[in-house]
Amino acid sequence: MNKNLLISNRGSVIPASPIRKLIPCADEAKSRGIEVYHLNIGQPDIQTPSYFWRAIQGYGEKVLAYGPSNGLLALRKAIATYYNSFGAKNITAANVSITTGGSEAILFVYIILADKGDEFLIPDPCYANYISLAAIAEVKLVPILTKVEGGFHLPEEEEIEKLITPKTKGIIICTPNNPTGTIYSKDEMMRVARIAEKHNIYLISDEVYREFLFDGRKHTSVFNLPGADEYKIVIDSVSKRFSACGARIGCVVSTNEDVLKGVMRCSMSRLCPPTIEQVGMVELYGRMDDIIPEMMKEYELRRNVVYEEIQKIPGAFATLPEGAFYMTCRLPVEDAEKFTQWMLTDFSVDGKTTMIAPGEGFYVTPGRGRNEARIAYVLKEKELRDAMRILREGIKKYQEENK
Amino acid sequence: MNKNLLISNRGSVIPASPIRKLIPCADEAKSRGIEVYHLNIGQPDIQTPSYFWRAIQGYGEKVLAYGPSNGLLALRKAIATYYNSFGAKNITAANVSITTGGSEAILFVYIILADKGDEFLIPDPCYANYISLAAIAEVKLVPILTKVEGGFHLPEEEEIEKLITPKTKGIIICTPNNPTGTIYSKDEMMRVARIAEKHNIYLISDEVYREFLFDGRKHTSVFNLPGADEYKIVIDSVSKRFSACGARIGCVVSTNEDVLKGVMRCSMSRLCPPTIEQVGMVELYGRMDDIIPEMMKEYELRRNVVYEEIQKIPGAFATLPEGAFYMTCRLPVEDAEKFTQWMLTDFSVDGKTTMIAPGEGFYVTPGRGRNEARIAYVLKEKELRDAMRILREGIKKYQEENK
Repeated sequence: MNKNLLISNRGSVIPASPIRKLIPCADEAKSRGIEVYHLNIGQPDIQTPSYFWRAIQGYGEKVLAYGPSNGLLALRKAIATYYNSFGAKNITAANVSITTGGSEAILFVYIILADKGDEFLIPDPCYANYISLAAIAEVKLVPILTKVEGGFHLPEEEEIEKLITPKTKGIIICTPNNPTGTIYSKDEMMRVARIAEKHNIYLISDEVYREFLFDGRKHTSVFNLPGADEYKIVIDSVSKRFSACGARIGCVVSTNEDVLKGVMRCSMSRLCPPTIEQVGMVELYGRMDDIIPEMMKEYELRRNVVYEEIQKIPGAFATLPEGAFYMTCRLPVEDAEKFTQWMLTDFSVDGKTTMIAPGEGFYVTPGRGRNEARIAYVLKEKELRDAMRILREGIKKYQEENK
Repeated sequence: MNKNLLISNRGSVIPASPIRKLIPCADEAKSRGIEVYHLNIGQPDIQTPSYFWRAIQGYGEKVLAYGPSNGLLALRKAIATYYNSFGAKNITAANVSITTGGSEAILFVYIILADKGDEFLIPDPCYANYISLAAIAEVKLVPILTKVEGGFHLPEEEEIEKLITPKTKGIIICTPNNPTGTIYSKDEMMRVARIAEKHNIYLISDEVYREFLFDGRKHTSVFNLPGADEYKIVIDSVSKRFSACGARIGCVVSTNEDVLKGVMRCSMSRLCPPTIEQVGMVELYGRMDDIIPEMMKEYELRRNVVYEEIQKIPGAFATLPEGAFYMTCRLPVEDAEKFTQWMLTDFSVDGKTTMIAPGEGFYVTPGRGRNEARIAYVLKEKELRDAMRILREGIKKYQEENK
């Protein structure tokens, strides 16, 4: 190939997903007949509610047409009703912009709020795609240090505030948190809200796991906080709430006219989100009481299982996850990515192995999280226990081989 | 609102779609009981083939799961087979990356090939979303001047070549062309291919309308051209080929490993394209002989109708569209956007009016195309004639009012 035919600098530095980059190793293991337990990806085994399937099977249009750029009105109305049900004030369909998954919502928010080199504060570790999408949008993520020992809770207000620079455009909060399972308390949410309002920057709240709350905890949405709403932006998605990751339906919610107009211009540039799935989602937002409580009971059970099992691994450490369906834990290995790869290429028990997501890719700070991993508890109890047992046996063998 | 709470510079300069920005006026007209003929948007009335609906209704999975970031293997295989069927050499599933519509393919290509301020040559006028996505990606489009009098065909090789600068990363060609309906001849395609190869830049070929060819014309894909394939990139979509605009399925096709890896990193950042529609599309790519010829007969008929009708408008000018389903014409009005808006707000015949897409938004060059419009012939003959008659009467009345 001609040496001058290059790709861009930004195209070269987009990191591969820590959740997905070892998939070729998993595929190779599967081709050798190995069964792989996927605790690497937030892909639940929970069935997408039958209401969804019925709605799309009943879709009566003959032409699969473009929809509105900001999404079908019926869905925007259903989501507005949902927001007001947990205490948001006067959210209407006009405040909701449907996006192609929460991922696109993140990208649009970066583009609309920030120019190249502008900054967002974000608790570190964070959802890995915040990092890759920041590389695409060429914005800088400034890490708010959080640690496994502290259950990944936020530092004090002055610690966060001193990270603000003239380039800071917003603070990004994901609660319940991916990858840590941390639910920020009302006090923590107030902390970041005060900073945002004081410095005239946006508070971007990723509330994709809003219902995933354990031990009777309550969720604090930014829309439940006092103060002006104009600086608050919510990023949301149906993927986890309705176990419909392949639907690619998310949204941006804001009462700020400038933000909404900017999101609309971005939205027009890609025409519309997928139409059929939006029709299915209208049904689901109308039936949350039928869907959510049972699902949450199941996740809390799994949370208990994964926490019980991680404690059986000598040298591993995690605190009890409070929400979402992830646990970020420290493992007794030097390099969790090498270990994860080895589990796929060199290890199995009874023809099975376990895939986890190495921690480093969830950190903005270079070098942090090398001995950590994110475990998604998205399998039924029996399989989850088996996967965790295999992980434990794998760690033991790996330690022996790497003494 | 706090005056310091701003959005970004790039967020402010993304243009609204010329196809969509007057939709509020259309909605307002409809709320007054006016029927609006939509010739503004490339949304055909042709039914999405029943194979698609049957495939998605037969989708047997219980969990709507994430798919692979580069798309379902079955679809990538089907598309590779399709490419090889018209003379591409050895395209395999590995060369095909499924994107969320052709729009996302454009965005990924911009990001992967170019840094902020880098340049792409593009025939002007061009598909408007190339312009809005360039604003999002902060790349510069350098117009290759084409004119309605010349049927929007390309200038001579040296005219194009002198637009090349050290910042030029590629030439973008869309054939058959949106918004002009021009099919570039093999000679024209060779012209841009020679320039690309000589200057070590990419040739990005948007072949979304590949089958939309009239008067027995042949299509020249970049993959039909001699020379190295590494610098060729194809952008494609199912939206028009299968009348499935709301599916949001497109692809990038390339044999260049660096490009494919870059697209994969972008793709991981948004997890995957919508799953269900991909399943439906596998069916359609296997049944093109059933679907395409009849559809093309219908479009050629409509092309004839729209061309016949435009000639009845005194002072309007267009050449016979060669492919796609658009005609870009000059209208006897000073400002086609004002006129388009007036058609929606102040004019109707028998309770009906016609919406077109003002030309200016399809031009990279400021000020060009103000008296032009894109007409999408996406309605049946009877409605199309009626819509064009109403357009003609509207122009007459508008001219009288603006004497």
